Amino acid sequence: MTCHMMTRAERAQLAMMLEVCAFPKPGNVDRCHDYEKTRLEHFLASTIFSRPALEEAERATGRIGEIIRHAVSATSCHNGGNTHFGAFILLIPLVYGGDIAGAQKAIERTDVSDAVAFYKAFSATNVRMHEHDELDVHDPRSLEVLRDRDITLLDVMQHSAKNDMVAREWITGFPLTRRGADLLKSFGNGREAIVETFLTMLASEPDTFIIKEHGSEVAHRTVMRARDVLDGKTSLEKFDAECIQQGINPGSTADIMIAAIYIALGEGWEWDS
Amino acid sequence: MTCHMMTRAERAQLAMMLEVCAFPKPGNVDRCHDYEKTRLEHFLASTIFSRPALEEAERATGRIGEIIRHAVSATSCHNGGNTHFGAFILLIPLVYGGDIAGAQKAIERTDVSDAVAFYKAFSATNVRMHEHDELDVHDPRSLEVLRDRDITLLDVMQHSAKNDMVAREWITGFPLTRRGADLLKSFGNGREAIVETFLTMLASEPDTFIIKEHGSEVAHRTVMRARDVLDGKTSLEKFDAECIQQGINPGSTADIMIAAIYIALGEGWEWDS
Repeated sequence: MTCHMMTRAERAQLAMMLEVCAFPKPGNVDRCHDYEKTRLEHFLASTIFSRPALEEAERATGRIGEIIRHAVSATSCHNGGNTHFGAFILLIPLVYGGDIAGAQKAIERTDVSDAVAFYKAFSATNVRMHEHDELDVHDPRSLEVLRDRDITLLDVMQHSAKNDMVAREWITGFPLTRRGADLLKSFGNGREAIVETFLTMLASEPDTFIIKEHGSEVAHRTVMRARDVLDGKTSLEKFDAECIQQGINPGSTADIMIAAIYIALGEGWEWDS
Repeated sequence: MTCHMMTRAERAQLAMMLEVCAFPKPGNVDRCHDYEKTRLEHFLASTIFSRPALEEAERATGRIGEIIRHAVSATSCHNGGNTHFGAFILLIPLVYGGDIAGAQKAIERTDVSDAVAFYKAFSATNVRMHEHDELDVHDPRSLEVLRDRDITLLDVMQHSAKNDMVAREWITGFPLTRRGADLLKSFGNGREAIVETFLTMLASEPDTFIIKEHGSEVAHRTVMRARDVLDGKTSLEKFDAECIQQGINPGSTADIMIAAIYIALGEGWEWDS
C-alpha cells in the first residue's frame, strides 16, 4: 500500500510516543513504570492532544510563543500534570523551522510578544522558572518586566540557560538534540537505539531537572551510575530500580531525547524495523 | 487551566490509546506484551496516523466507505500490519454520526460506492473476508459483482455478519458497543474498568476473530476460561499467559472495546481518575 509522506506534526507526535514507550528507561515513565500521578496514558493523551499546536507550528505563520502556549494549554487537560512542556520548547521551533537550522532562524525572530505568551502559558502550571527572581513565571509582575525591558523569548531562554539544559539548546544551537540524533543513527534502527541513546546521554550530561529536584550532587551521581551501566558494572534494570526508589527522574534528558528522535526520523532513522 | 472540548476525532484516538494500554488484557498486545511483528508502538502509531481520517469522519460530509479507506491506508504505513481495521469499521460511522443513533443513520445511507471503496481499502491488506466466495475481498472480480448487483456497504456487512461480530454491530444496532459502554460506566472511572469490561465481554461472546483463526471450539473454550477468571477459579495473569502461549488473540472484542470506550467517554465516563 502506498503511504503518504509523514507530516512534521506527525513526526513530532511519533517522537513523543516512541520516547515514552522505550523500555527500560531509568527513572522515567515507560511501558512498565508509572509515577503515582503521571501514567503512561497521560503522556500518550498529551501526544494526541498536542496535534493542533504542532500543525500550527508546521504552518509556520503564527508566533512561536503563542504556539507553545497552545501546546501547553491543550496538554493540561488531564490530571497527569506536566508531561511534555520541556519537549514543546524544543519541538515547536523544530517543527516550525523543519530542522535545527530552521529552528534557529525561527528562534532569532522571537520578540517580547513571544515571551509574554510563554509566561502566560506557564503561569497557570506548576513549572518552576526563576523562582525568587524578577522573572519568576508565577509572579504576575514579571509580565511588566518583560514588556518594560523588551525581553524576547530568546532572552528568556538565555536567562534560564545556566540552570536548564532545554533552554540551553535554544542558545547553543541544539547541540544535545544533534548529538542524540547522531547517537540514534549510530545505534541503528529500531526501539533499542532509543534506550541506548538515552543511557549514553545520561552518562555524559547532568540532567538539570534532577539538579532542580535533588541538587547537583545527585545529578552527578546519576551520570556516574549511567556510566556504570555502559561499562557493564551494573545492570540497566538495577539502575532503573535505584532511580525509581530515590525519585530520580531525568525529565530534561527525556525532553531532549524527543527532539533527537524528531530530527533522526527526518534524516532516515527508522523506528519500525 | 481551562480546557477545550475534546473533538470526536480526539475522543476516538483516546479510545484507541486507552484500549491498547489497558493491562493485563488476555491474549492481546498490551503494555507488557507485544506480538512478534505487531508491537505496542504499532498500535500507537496507527492511533496517531488515523487522525486525518477521523477528522474527515467528524466533518460528516464525505462518504463512509471512502473514509474507512483513508483510515486503513494511513495506518498501513508501518510494518505492524492490521492494528485497527475492525475498530475503524465501528469508529468511522460512530464519529461521523456522533453516537450510535447517528451512526445507524449514516450506515443506512451507504451505497455501492461505499462498498467499492471499502473493498479497495481491504484488497491491499491481508484481511480475510469471504474467502472462496464471490465477494472475496482479494478477488478483483468482486468489485464487478458489487457494481452489477448494486450492493451497498450495509449489504456487505449483512453478508459478513454471521461470521464477524464487528460487521454484526452494523446490522444489529451496535448492541455489544452499547453493552461495553454500559459495563465501563458500571465498573466506574479509570483504566481498571477497561480490563474488567474486556473480561466480561470475553466471558459472554465468542470472539469471531478467534473463530476465524482457531475455530469455534477454541473460541468457546476462551469464553469459559474468561468466566473462570470472573468466578475466581483462575487468575487473569494465568489466563493471559494461556492465551499468549496458544496464540489466542481476541481481536474483534478489542475492536468493539474501542468503540465502547468512545461511546462511554461521550457519556461522561472518565478515563483519568
